[in-house]
Amino acid sequence: MKARITVTLKNAVLDPQGKAISGALESLDFKGVQSVRQGKIFDLVLAAQDQASARQQLEAMCEKLLANTVVENYHIDLVP
Amino acid sequence: MKARITVTLKNAVLDPQGKAISGALESLDFKGVQSVRQGKIFDLVLAAQDQASARQQLEAMCEKLLANTVVENYHIDLVP
Repeated sequence: MKARITVTLKNAVLDPQGKAISGALESLDFKGVQSVRQGKIFDLVLAAQDQASARQQLEAMCEKLLANTVVENYHIDLVP
Repeated sequence: MKARITVTLKNAVLDPQGKAISGALESLDFKGVQSVRQGKIFDLVLAAQDQASARQQLEAMCEKLLANTVVENYHIDLVP
């Protein structure tokens, strides 16, 4: 089973990398960019067959390793 | 208008970072992880009002700055 985990910074957390990208886009003459925020994705292939156990396993992975839940949110999409 | 740009490595390109994450998950006793590949997302807020011009602008941003099209693919999702 395939899964995509999306990890994004919480809204209240500053994103200096996004700010830098926004500045770079402006210096490349792209107008009208109001904000940029960067995040990460992880595309996993799992052996688990049923969605419930896969989701449970993925949540544990996010909590333990893939996301820093103090400053980041995560979202799990399963592709059966 | 909001947009999410997803940048992923092309399939033929090795992903040592994904391999390291896969190894870390295994050492944390997560079973059945067959592969991990990492990617990036950019969440942008644009001033552009119509979808066509926004998409055109975003494609130019990807080609010029956000993605390295030699080794990466990009995907644009617009959220009106």
